[in-house]
Order: sequence, then structure tokens, then C-alpha cells
Amino acid sequence: MKNNKVVLAFSGGLDTSYCVKHLKIDKGLEVHAVLVNTGGFSAEELQEVEKRAYALGVESYEALDEVEHYYQSCIKYLVFGNILKNNTYPLSVSAERITQAMAVAKYAKKIDAAYVAHGSTGAGNDQVRFDMIFNIMIPGVEILTPIRDNQLSREEEIEFLKKHGVEMDFTKAQYSINKGIWGTSVGGKETLTSHQPLPETAYPTQVTKEGQEQISLQFEQGELVGINEQKYASPVAAIQALQAIAAPYGIGRDVHVGDTIIGIKGRVGFEAAAPMVIIKAHHTLEKHVLTKWQLYWKEQLATWYGNWLHEGQFIDPVMRNIEGFLQETQQNVTGTVHVLLAPYRFQVQGIESKYDLMSSAFGSYGEMNNGWSGEDVKGFSKIFGNQAMLYHQVNGTEF
Amino acid sequence: MKNNKVVLAFSGGLDTSYCVKHLKIDKGLEVHAVLVNTGGFSAEELQEVEKRAYALGVESYEALDEVEHYYQSCIKYLVFGNILKNNTYPLSVSAERITQAMAVAKYAKKIDAAYVAHGSTGAGNDQVRFDMIFNIMIPGVEILTPIRDNQLSREEEIEFLKKHGVEMDFTKAQYSINKGIWGTSVGGKETLTSHQPLPETAYPTQVTKEGQEQISLQFEQGELVGINEQKYASPVAAIQALQAIAAPYGIGRDVHVGDTIIGIKGRVGFEAAAPMVIIKAHHTLEKHVLTKWQLYWKEQLATWYGNWLHEGQFIDPVMRNIEGFLQETQQNVTGTVHVLLAPYRFQVQGIESKYDLMSSAFGSYGEMNNGWSGEDVKGFSKIFGNQAMLYHQVNGTEF
Amino acid sequence: MKNNKVVLAFSGGLDTSYCVKHLKIDKGLEVHAVLVNTGGFSAEELQEVEKRAYALGVESYEALDEVEHYYQSCIKYLVFGNILKNNTYPLSVSAERITQAMAVAKYAKKIDAAYVAHGSTGAGNDQVRFDMIFNIMIPGVEILTPIRDNQLSREEEIEFLKKHGVEMDFTKAQYSINKGIWGTSVGGKETLTSHQPLPETAYPTQVTKEGQEQISLQFEQGELVGINEQKYASPVAAIQALQAIAAPYGIGRDVHVGDTIIGIKGRVGFEAAAPMVIIKAHHTLEKHVLTKWQLYWKEQLATWYGNWLHEGQFIDPVMRNIEGFLQETQQNVTGTVHVLLAPYRFQVQGIESKYDLMSSAFGSYGEMNNGWSGEDVKGFSKIFGNQAMLYHQVNGTEF
Amino acid sequence: MKNNKVVLAFSGGLDTSYCVKHLKIDKGLEVHAVLVNTGGFSAEELQEVEKRAYALGVESYEALDEVEHYYQSCIKYLVFGNILKNNTYPLSVSAERITQAMAVAKYAKKIDAAYVAHGSTGAGNDQVRFDMIFNIMIPGVEILTPIRDNQLSREEEIEFLKKHGVEMDFTKAQYSINKGIWGTSVGGKETLTSHQPLPETAYPTQVTKEGQEQISLQFEQGELVGINEQKYASPVAAIQALQAIAAPYGIGRDVHVGDTIIGIKGRVGFEAAAPMVIIKAHHTLEKHVLTKWQLYWKEQLATWYGNWLHEGQFIDPVMRNIEGFLQETQQNVTGTVHVLLAPYRFQVQGIESKYDLMSSAFGSYGEMNNGWSGEDVKGFSKIFGNQAMLYHQVNGTEF
Repeated sequence: MKNNKVVLAFSGGLDTSYCVKHLKIDKGLEVHAVLVNTGGFSAEELQEVEKRAYALGVESYEALDEVEHYYQSCIKYLVFGNILKNNTYPLSVSAERITQAMAVAKYAKKIDAAYVAHGSTGAGNDQVRFDMIFNIMIPGVEILTPIRDNQLSREEEIEFLKKHGVEMDFTKAQYSINKGIWGTSVGGKETLTSHQPLPETAYPTQVTKEGQEQISLQFEQGELVGINEQKYASPVAAIQALQAIAAPYGIGRDVHVGDTIIGIKGRVGFEAAAPMVIIKAHHTLEKHVLTKWQLYWKEQLATWYGNWLHEGQFIDPVMRNIEGFLQETQQNVTGTVHVLLAPYRFQVQGIESKYDLMSSAFGSYGEMNNGWSGEDVKGFSKIFGNQAMLYHQVNGTEF
Repeated sequence: MKNNKVVLAFSGGLDTSYCVKHLKIDKGLEVHAVLVNTGGFSAEELQEVEKRAYALGVESYEALDEVEHYYQSCIKYLVFGNILKNNTYPLSVSAERITQAMAVAKYAKKIDAAYVAHGSTGAGNDQVRFDMIFNIMIPGVEILTPIRDNQLSREEEIEFLKKHGVEMDFTKAQYSINKGIWGTSVGGKETLTSHQPLPETAYPTQVTKEGQEQISLQFEQGELVGINEQKYASPVAAIQALQAIAAPYGIGRDVHVGDTIIGIKGRVGFEAAAPMVIIKAHHTLEKHVLTKWQLYWKEQLATWYGNWLHEGQFIDPVMRNIEGFLQETQQNVTGTVHVLLAPYRFQVQGIESKYDLMSSAFGSYGEMNNGWSGEDVKGFSKIFGNQAMLYHQVNGTEF
Repeated sequence: MKNNKVVLAFSGGLDTSYCVKHLKIDKGLEVHAVLVNTGGFSAEELQEVEKRAYALGVESYEALDEVEHYYQSCIKYLVFGNILKNNTYPLSVSAERITQAMAVAKYAKKIDAAYVAHGSTGAGNDQVRFDMIFNIMIPGVEILTPIRDNQLSREEEIEFLKKHGVEMDFTKAQYSINKGIWGTSVGGKETLTSHQPLPETAYPTQVTKEGQEQISLQFEQGELVGINEQKYASPVAAIQALQAIAAPYGIGRDVHVGDTIIGIKGRVGFEAAAPMVIIKAHHTLEKHVLTKWQLYWKEQLATWYGNWLHEGQFIDPVMRNIEGFLQETQQNVTGTVHVLLAPYRFQVQGIESKYDLMSSAFGSYGEMNNGWSGEDVKGFSKIFGNQAMLYHQVNGTEF
Repeated sequence: MKNNKVVLAFSGGLDTSYCVKHLKIDKGLEVHAVLVNTGGFSAEELQEVEKRAYALGVESYEALDEVEHYYQSCIKYLVFGNILKNNTYPLSVSAERITQAMAVAKYAKKIDAAYVAHGSTGAGNDQVRFDMIFNIMIPGVEILTPIRDNQLSREEEIEFLKKHGVEMDFTKAQYSINKGIWGTSVGGKETLTSHQPLPETAYPTQVTKEGQEQISLQFEQGELVGINEQKYASPVAAIQALQAIAAPYGIGRDVHVGDTIIGIKGRVGFEAAAPMVIIKAHHTLEKHVLTKWQLYWKEQLATWYGNWLHEGQFIDPVMRNIEGFLQETQQNVTGTVHVLLAPYRFQVQGIESKYDLMSSAFGSYGEMNNGWSGEDVKGFSKIFGNQAMLYHQVNGTEF
């Protein structure tokens, strides 16, 4: 016989607050709330959420700090692959939701819960990510999705909560914000259109810095380990430090429109100062130290990795294979990248690396060198164009 | 017996001026100078070059206006494919050099020249592009490359010209500039290093506009046909108009490091206001009107197309096949894109298109709709994750 | 108000016979049976099916001859792309089912039916193909799937039919056979295992020819137009003629295991003499007339096209884009291919084509020629290996 | 000052015999002959070659047994990737030549030779492979290629050798044969045409077995470790044993036409019984144990790996990255494959593996199971086809 424990992915917002009450009262379940912190919560916020959870009547509450694990299992590869979905979006929410779902699944397994619940609606990507990860990792555990199933309006949820004595701030925020270490998404009435940009005020981080600032980033085997020659305890700390430096410039803001897992187009604003700077800096470093075809194949695999991650397929073993490939390419991705920060923009200015293939020791582009001669290039050009030449000769092409 | 006509790709600079004299005096050839204009020369500059050619003693001089043909045969596909080499460089020089080489080859064929000459050194990409295109298009015509063969220094060239009575401004420009409709490249002492950015003064177009400017771009089947609702006679005119609007903001400047055809890394600065704005705007429009896999395959083919073009392989028939693919995808890439211009940056703000798949008529992302239900998504999630679920069950994965 | 017309994809077998009765009696619908012939039915069989349909009480019955359309819209591209799923299976059933679903959808639209029905179970690929095509092409029409919904056993279906006075041969065939112009699939108890091959007797076409037979196939722009220098009215006729020649050798038999749309692995036997011979012959011809990168990109796109077709996504517009690409590559795929047929095997022996890039006019591999010299190749080798050389120099690789 | 040692890649044939004498007499060098055995030489043959080397006057002679290293560094990955160039050719010679060039380069470095020599002509692939590997691995060592440089005819070589007192069998073999553990290539007058197959007599291994033979192959993590349940000391031994079993059936013969490195098409016959059986068996096993996208990406990377290897670019670091990927995918590629051998053909009949994703424990294709329902598939089909549905709705497609 099934026990009556349910593990609920809890954020402290309206939907998951409703879930607690509903699961407890209407379903008679023992609610174990779990908040998975992927870098979006301060200590105060965490305390606040915990208080609310217990006030709502959960049997237990746990805040899992997954930031380091999130970095190690996912963000690291997003950097290695310079992954921006459709060349735009650092997959902030996509990656985070997977990590959260996996942590919740493990927790459910650990406390041997018969049920697992998430507060997703029936209209977005997150439901698929939660469902799939749960189906795969804890196949026997029943998934409950009260918001999706009951299709309640905001008002109905509030009414239900009030009826059951819950007091909280029910004011709807003008913009829905999702914050994590790898970026913050922003949704609002403009992102429901195709043509309107988000107003300045919609972004959680306001622009407070002026002028220009020159920074340097230190990478070791593809990972950000230092800023301005100062080493950090972990890449996570370095990312957070860079975020503190760059975000007040309003860097890394954009609006992305992309393909949701359920086939419709979705538009979302985001601010992701550190991710955007890191990816562009890392990519420039790679352009100096990797060969042409390493760059090519990294891009192929990384593009696909990003898409498949976005679609919640993180646990497909092919993802581990791709991660292995990406990891192996990072051996020489070590060096310093110089970046200029300015309001609303940044520019990668150059790199220094002992693995730099533009090494002046072997001649510079545009200047002759000792390794080969103009005659060699003549021969190269002859042979390199041989097949096209033959093709057009055989087919008598009239140019 | 061979005639003694040589067609020389002429630009009016030191190297090709040397070539005229050398080919005429040392080789005894009848020099037919050809300048191929791909959008980088004003009427005055063209007159100036013509005067110099005749002063140097050419038998004939021809300035071929290839701008429209360049657009139709090449730039168009760079737009369709949103092509930026290594996500950075619009291939300004690469594409232009191909067009020039092809025009020179056709001209050599037309006047039945026994020789064709170009002024490339033995150290760069251009020599390969010229050689290959000539080898393929006019296989019987002998290629002469005095600069590459004689490995003359700048000083030796000047001395030779002076000796033969040539008077021109022999001052070396601090930065070598290559200008065309699809962007201007800038090389200098900084681009010979890996870590230095170009100084502000190196860019031909100085920043003279302040504040912000809102513009709209009209695309029809992937081509830029209007700006701010004003139609242009051709996409070429629209590109030039956009360039005039955006360039004074210093938009589209960057430094690219990439793989040259001859295997070494090369670094080049560029300014390409119109190309960068057009590509980003076009890409955003595509994200709204194309399906996920259209976007995916376009990107695969376009990345490769850009690389192969860069390497001078424009005449490989696979390029025509890819162009066909890209063309077919543009059927619905019609609509208006709103762009914000500001000093050193721009932002695509949104689009309007009757082909927009984010059409509100079929429900918005994040809101429920009539087409499908939460139950459908549950089923989808189950089946979509089926293989990973089976894989981990069969293999008893411990998560 | 909905009308009560249902269009049923009818094959005359037990499942669709059950559907007729069930839809008519239990649902009170007017059943319009449609059989879509994709090359698997003889005139006698068609008559037989029609008789049965009316005996079951359909309101109308239509046999749509889709063979030519099937070839033009689909098979042609499978040939152009040399498509064998996982290098094995010519997608016989996958392609056919799509064609059938599309024909049924069009028919339902034509007679303005409120319902459309198919007899698929809930365990295979076909349900997804029918569902998706119907959802996309006739979104307002309700899909009925009695077999999937009621999960009836074979015995229950028979009982129901007998109860309603249906007399037919209810003997279960030992092997389930699906026949069409692009191959015949064979399923049986062995294909439910991973290790057993199908016995000789399971294959519909028994081996009746001995010895060897030399044939030649004539292709024009990628399409089979003649055999042994005899032209056919259409490629469809040529395929059928080749099938008659090759099938009695037992050529083109194999067992494929692959990924079903629903994520599990499925195993199926097949015999496809003409498809296998055509694809291998066509591919060999292409290897002679296309350039290296045409071959490469054709393979990339074709592999993906085959997978996406298999998964029922034939109507995604990217498929039209890929077809355009494949079509453009076939311009020169014209010539004769010599094939040796023998029991259980065949061998492509060589080709003749005026577009052959191995043309002896330009020198043979392994023999010197006038187009280039050993010195050219030395230069080529130097430059072609330049980047790897630099890489290992910079990184001090110890080999 | 350069020493006068030259390391010569020696095979004992006419060309390399000429090289010994020429290098010694005409160039005054001290010739160190090296034969690299990649599985094509018997003990007697090796003795024979050694005798000839010393008879020709070499300073030293060394036969390097590279078979095991060849397998570990290269063949293994050709199996992991199921690599057949253009779906046809197991890259027998391509892979072997790379291994040989690398061994020669290492040897030259070891004995500190100032020169390295190979006997390739200027018309084939091998010259590029030797040149490139030498350029990369031993950049300071001068490459000598007497046959290519002097463009001597066979007759001139013989005359030169006779003049210098060399006595050997100068009869030209009707077919040029290159034998190694991963296959034997066969060239002759037929392979210089596009349309003629090789005659039966051209193949070194004649067909001496009749009837059919059932064998089983044991794979562990992608490597062949046993045959008919008998374990071998190493995969090399297993390959050789399989070759002994399968070759007398005439299995694995074909003629390949492909793109040479120098851009022309080349045609070559081959017999490769063990490689073909192993690759097909391995691939079938993979289809059972890997996920859909593992199979897809393996194929992408492996196709490209094969091409790049073929072109002599084995030392590009991207090759190591791809090998890493391939290796990681082989974790579960363990099990037994049943194969039927018969004259001129073989058939993979099935597999057994504890990692088989077709595991009957989770339901069979075509039969219902407990993991999901027909309702789930309905939902899946709805969502899976959502984008195409929206696309055609928005664009009002008339089907």
C-alpha cells in the first residue's frame, strides 16, 4: 500500500502555496516541501520561504543548496560549449529547472515518498521537464500537478487560500521573475507580444554604473577561476563576483523568442550579465587555442546539447557522451581574457594564453615566415581547388 | 602561341601599382587593369584610380561595378543564413574577394588574355582565393603573382616605382583598410597581437551620433527592402541607406580571430554596421516564422557555407545546393523588425509578421488554449521520456 | 452540429473490419471506408476488399490509387537521399503510412466528414503517424481509434464480429505482412526477440531463381527510368519491373531493429529487392558524379529526413526545404549502373556516365597527369597540415 | 650541420628498392630502412624483405611490429564508429598508411636522422599522408621522395637497379595488392575504369568454403573479444581468427570509388572479411543498446572521423576528442552477435545483451504494456505535431 507522503517542489509563491494546502486538505497527504536553491535566493529569502512553508502546514521543509552541483553538472558544459540557444539565450531557466527536478526526485526517493508534486501549469516548458525527470528517475512515484489539473485562475487560488486562513501578500507582481546563478528571466505583458521590448523598469537589476571598466578574466581548462588576477575558491564564486561587477551596467539583457517543448513559440526577457560575458570571453579564448575543426565540432555538439537540455532530455546518455567530448576539448583553454564593460554592452578585447596558436613564434598572419613559401601555397591552391576544377571541366560549365 | 595580354586585378595601391610596372617592363606584357568595385569606392576614388592606372602605363583600364551582382550571388545568402564566421565576423573581405576574382576571371576570358595577375603576398587568404578561382574558371590562363614571387619589401617596391618615374603618395597608412558594401576590415599593429584592441582612431567611420534612434526594417522573403516603411529600389540601396544611418553610432565594430585558409590564426578588426544589424534583425524575424528544425538545419548549412566561402570554395557545386535550400526557407521571412540604435550597440526589439508563429490567434506561451490540454502534455512527457526511462531501467542507473 | 460521417482508413483486415461494425453500430456513424493503395494490392485483392467493405455495411467505399503520388512526393526523395534507416531499412512502412494518412485526411475533407478513424493499436508507430497527420491537416475533425481505445483482444474482436453476423476467415496469419511498392515488412514471433532471424518461409517472396544475372539500370537526374536499356513509362513502372526481376533471388531481405516514435526499440523483418538495388546503384552513380561535399551534405540531410519521416513529421516545412536540396543535387545523376544479381545478394559492378568525375580525360588516380605536379602536392601537404603542425609546436607535443 | 642519415619507409617492392640505391649512391646518404608491419606480412615475408634490404646495401634495417598499436590507436575507433567510407570501404589502406608514417617518424626521431624518405608517386593519397605526418611530427627533418621527384617509369627504375647490380624478380604483378589486418586493397586495369568489376582471380583470397556457417561474436565495450564463445588474448587475435574463418567465403569484397585527398576520384577493390563482419555485427549490437541520439551523433562524428583520417589528418587534436566521445558510448556495447556466413555474403541474425533496450521486461513493440497508455500516445501525438499544425494554420496551407 502506498504511503501518503508527497514531496512538493516549493518556491513560496502563490501556486506552490496553493499546492501545499490542496495536497494536505483535499488529498489528505503529508506534504514535504523542498526548495531547490540554484543561486536565486538570498539567506533572508530562504528564511522567509521556510517560515511560509511551515505556516502553510508542511510536515517538513528542506532547502537544498544545489548551486555547486548545478555548476558542476550543467553550467560548466554550457560554458565549454559557449551555449546560447538560437545564438541568444543562455538557457538560464531551462538548465535550472532540470537541476531542481533532479534534486526533488532524489529527495523523494530518499524519504521514500509515494507522490511527488510540482506547481506547473499546463501551458509551459516546466511541466514537461518535471514530468520527464520524475518519470525517468522515480518511475513508480505518482506525479501530482494540482495547478495543471484544476486549471484554477489566480483568483480561485487566492480564494481557496484565504478560505483556509492563509495570509500572505497576494498582490500580483507586474513581471514574473525567475532568478538563478545562470541568469534571471523576466516575463510580462510585453513578452506576450512579438513586437514590444521590455521597459527599463522590468529588469530586476537597474543600471547604476556609468563609464567604462576594464576587467580581466582568468580561465583554466575552460573554467572561470579568477577575475582581475584574483583567484576564487570555485568557479561558482567567480561567476557571482563577475555578476556583481557587470550586472549594474545592464549588460546581458535581451529578449529571446524560441521554440518551447510543446511546439509553440515563447518569448522571454532575461538579464544575464555574467553568463554572457563568460561565454563570449571563453569563446574568444577558444578561437585562439583550438583548431578549426575542434571549433566546428564543439559548436555542432553544443548547439544540440543546448536544445536537448532545453527540452528536458538531460538524462539521455548521449548528453554524458557530449559532455565528455566538450571536457576533452578544454585541456588548453587556459589564459586571460580582457573585457571592457560599459553601460548596456561589453567588448572582448583580446586574450593571452601560452596555448595561443597565433603565437608570434611561428609567424604572423599577413607576414611571411620560415615554415612555408609562396610556392607551397600555389601548390595548395592548385590541389585544394582540384575537384571543383575537374567538376566544371567535365560538365563544361559556362561561367 | 600565347598572346602577351595580362589582366591585372588592380586597386591603385602600392602593390598593384608595382605589378603594372613590373609586368610591363620586366615581363614585356600588355597590362589590362581591372578594378572590381564591390561597394568600397566612391565616384571620386574611382576616377583617381583610373587616372593612376593610365599614368602607370596600362594598355586598358576597366572599373567593373559588381555591387548588384555581389549582392545577388553572395550577400543575399549570407543574410538568409545569418552568417557570422565563428559567430563574429560577417565575412566582409572573404565574400568580396571571391566576387572580385570571379569578375577578373570572366574579364580575362572575355579579352582572351593569356595571363592573369594579382598582387597578393604569400602570407594571406587572398592569394588562395584568387589562385583557386582562376585555376577553376580559366584553367589555361597562366597566373602571375609578382609580389608573392619576388617577396619584395615595401621599400624595394617604392624604389622600383621611383626608378621608373612613378610619382604617388608612398606614405604608409597606419591601418590597412578594405572597404566594401558588406563591411570594412581594419588591420594594424594591434591586430598582429592577440591581446590588444584597435584604438578608436583606427576605425574609418568615427562615432558622430549620440542618443538613441528607433528604426524599423522591412524584409520580404528574407531580403531587406525597406527602412522605416520607405521602400528602396533594391536591397543594395537599402543596405547602403542603413549603413548611412547606423555607422555613425559605431555599431558593428569588433575584432575577429579566425582560421585562415593556410592554417594559421589571423586577427582582423572590422566595422560592419549594416551587416550586423541586418543579420540580427533577420534572424529574429526567422525565429518567429520558421519551425524549430528549419532554424536548426539552416544554421548547420549556413555555418558550413560561410566556412567554405571563406576558404575560397565558392564554386563547388554544393554551394549552389545550399543556396537553393536557404532560398526555399525564406518564403515566409517577411515582416517588419524594430531596432534600437545607440552608440556602440543596437538592440532588436521585436517583429511584426503575418507569418508569425507566435500568432495570438492560437494561444500564447504560458497561457492555456483550446488546442490541447494538460492531459495531452502529461502523455507527451511520458512518451517523450520513454527511451531514457527504459535505458535507465534496463541499466539500473543509480541516480 | 457535427454530421455523423466518419472516414475510416480501411484495409480489409480484422481490426478495420471490427472498426466498421463498431463505428456503425456502437457509435451510430455513417462509415465511409477508404483503402489507400501504395502498391501492395493486386486488382483481385482490391475487389475482395471492396466486397468485404460493403458486406460489413459501409455507406461508401473508395480505393484510392496513390502509387504514383507516393512515388512523386516521397519515394523519389528516399532514392535521391539513398535513405536507409540506420543504414539498414528502406523505411518501407514508415513512408507508406504517411502517404495513406494524408490521402485519408484529404478524403475526409473532401466529403466533409466530422470524424476520421484508424485501426491502429496503442503500441506502435502507426497511431502517431495517423494522429499527427490528422491533427495537422484536418484539425477540426475528431479522431476515433476504437482498437486503441477499447484495447480489445483478437478474440473479443472476432466474437463481436460474429455476433453481428460477419463471416470472414478469422485464421491468424503466422506472420503479419505489410506490402507496398517500397518494400514488404514481415513481423512474427522471431521479431519479438532480439536474437532470432526470420525463417525462410516467413518471407512472402520465395527464392525461385538460381545462378547469376547481369542487369543494367538507367538513371536520369536521380530517377530510375530504364532497365537493360529499356525505358519505362514512369519510375513506378521501372521499380515494379525491377522488383519482378530481383525479388525471386531473395535479394534485399534483412531484419531491422530501430527506435520507434514512442521510444522503445522495435524489430522488423523486410524484403525490399528493388529498393535496395536502386539505392545502392544510385549511390554508386552519385559517388562518381558529385563532389565530396555534395556527398557529405546529402548524407547529413538525408539521414535526418529519413528519421523525421519515420517519426511522422513529413509535413514539417523543413522537409520541403530538404527535398529542394536533394532535388538540386540530382542534376547530373544520370547514367547507367551495372548490377549483378545472385541468390540472396547483389553487387554493383560499375557505372557509365557523361558526368563521371573519374573521366579519363583528366588523368586517372594513381597515374600522373598534366593538371598538377608532385611539387604542387608537396605544397599542398605543407599547407594542409599547417594547423596541426602549429598546434603541436605550440603545445610541445611529445609524439 | 646535417648528418647524412635517412630513414626510408621500406616495403621491399620495386619503388622502395630503387629508393635505397638512389639515396645511397646518388645522394650519398646512409640508408636506414624501416618496414612497418600493420598485419600484412608473414614471418617468411619479413625475413625475405630483411634479406633484400641488406642486399641493397642499407646501413640498418628494422621491422617494426605495429599491429597491436595500430589496433589500439586506430582500428578500435573504426569499429566503435562503424566506419565505412561512403558506406562502403573500411579505410583499410588509409588507416594503415597513417600508422606507418607515424612509426617511421618516431623512428627517424629516435635515431636522429636528418632525412626521411618515402617511395610514393605524385599521383596518390599516400604522398600526402606521409608528407603531412612528417611535416607535423618531425618538422625539421627533410623529406625525400625520389619516385615523385624523378617521375621515373618502371622501366627506368629497373634499368637503374640492374645497372647497380641488383637482382630481384622484376615481373610486374597483374594486380597491386596492399595487405593489412584491416583489409586488403586490390588495384588493376579494371579499377582504372568506372564500369568494370574485378575478376574473381584478382582477389588474393580465393573462395574455398561452401555452404553456410553459423558463428557468434562476443563484444565487450565495443571490442571483439571472442568468437563462438572462445576468448582471445586480444582483439587483434580475434580479428585474425575471424579473418581466417570468414575470408574463404569471399565475404567483404567490393569496389569503392571515392574522393582522394588531391581532389580526383579514385577506384579501388578490396577484400575485408573480418572488418565488414565486425562492423555490421557491432552496429547491430549498438542499435539494441544505445539510445536514438547516441546512434545519431556517433554516426555524425564517425563519418567525419573516417573522412579526416582518410585525408591524413589523424594528428588534428579534434580526432582525440572524437575518439573520447566514441569510447564513452561503448560502455554498454557488450553482448553476443549471431552471424551467418555463406559464399560472398553474410547476415547478422540477432544479438543477446544484458543492456538490450528491447528487453522484454519492459514490453515489446507492437504489444501493449504497463508503462504508458493509448491516451498517453494521443497526447504525445497532439503535442509532437503542434508546431507543424500551428505553422499550417498560420499560413493557411491548402493541402
